[in-house]
Amino acid sequence: MEKSTLDRAIDAVSMLPGIGRKSAQRIVFFCIKQPTQQIFHLAEALSALKTELHECPHCFNFSSGGLCEICSNPKRDGTSICVVEDALSLKHLERALSFHGHYHVLGGVLSPLEGVTPEQLHLHALRSRLEEHPAQEVILALNPTLEGEATSHYIAELLKGLPLTLTRLASGIPSGGSLDYVDDVTMARAFTNRQIVSDGP
Amino acid sequence: MEKSTLDRAIDAVSMLPGIGRKSAQRIVFFCIKQPTQQIFHLAEALSALKTELHECPHCFNFSSGGLCEICSNPKRDGTSICVVEDALSLKHLERALSFHGHYHVLGGVLSPLEGVTPEQLHLHALRSRLEEHPAQEVILALNPTLEGEATSHYIAELLKGLPLTLTRLASGIPSGGSLDYVDDVTMARAFTNRQIVSDGP
Repeated sequence: MEKSTLDRAIDAVSMLPGIGRKSAQRIVFFCIKQPTQQIFHLAEALSALKTELHECPHCFNFSSGGLCEICSNPKRDGTSICVVEDALSLKHLERALSFHGHYHVLGGVLSPLEGVTPEQLHLHALRSRLEEHPAQEVILALNPTLEGEATSHYIAELLKGLPLTLTRLASGIPSGGSLDYVDDVTMARAFTNRQIVSDGP
Repeated sequence: MEKSTLDRAIDAVSMLPGIGRKSAQRIVFFCIKQPTQQIFHLAEALSALKTELHECPHCFNFSSGGLCEICSNPKRDGTSICVVEDALSLKHLERALSFHGHYHVLGGVLSPLEGVTPEQLHLHALRSRLEEHPAQEVILALNPTLEGEATSHYIAELLKGLPLTLTRLASGIPSGGSLDYVDDVTMARAFTNRQIVSDGP
């Protein structure tokens, strides 16, 4: 058994999130059986993540250099800006196909415990961006965690005085979910934000 | 969003076994946040699987060229040969630390449905190897699937006439397992192969 090559690959794969030692072995032995070209392609695609991806100077989304795909798309509405934690959230929102504005990627959320201060996020860049290019609406789409909520509050304070509507994603029972499994906070919010179905006779 | 670089990586990662689209996204975004050196190391370790691994000419295990680590280890007992399906099985057996002989990696099991014939496996190489270097014992350690069983039978026929003992791994209730969850075939085998605990006064 060629210890170094095999084990080096297994070690490297098992540091990926959600992949234990057994899965890493399975993946490595799978790779060995694949055509060389396919594995070279995988390796190249991973390396490219570090060599080819840059930050959009406008919204801090990934770009291949210069403005990102969304900021440079003339069909997107620049007066509506959705604030997200990271580019993965952005990708999830894009998949829902319900938003046609621009984004602003913070690069994380405030977390005093982990030492993440406002200076490390693209928070003040959001304010300057809005001062330069006024928007009608800013939609907060941070994860509904403690840190996400704190960051949303911080942004609400930060944007005070700017002539825009600040909104946030609706919180409630997930579509297809069961009331049996909804936690108390979500249940309380779903109740508070209940929507009118029909309004009188 | 730089569609090609990101999506290329996500596509490439999601073709790995046990990794769906969501996990692939998580892995790719994790990689983006890692130090460049670490991702280059991962990419290089994967490529090395296709460039640096060769087959041991003796047992068909992986080697870095020439005899593998096990065949070239003078402390291992060459008169006892364990026949395994692939190098992953070998790795699992090695982890158990209970075998100190040599291996023979078949490279798969017979499967008429998938078109795997004896010629595609290292079956006849096993016979010639044993004729050249006689062994005292050959241990069959194939997976207890239909194909594994058929291959074991084939090997039993193939080795007929050679002066050696042919054995197979014990089949039975897994250690730590519960009788409630044992399938009928395993249960029947465990019963048939029951072991004597104490033999009368």
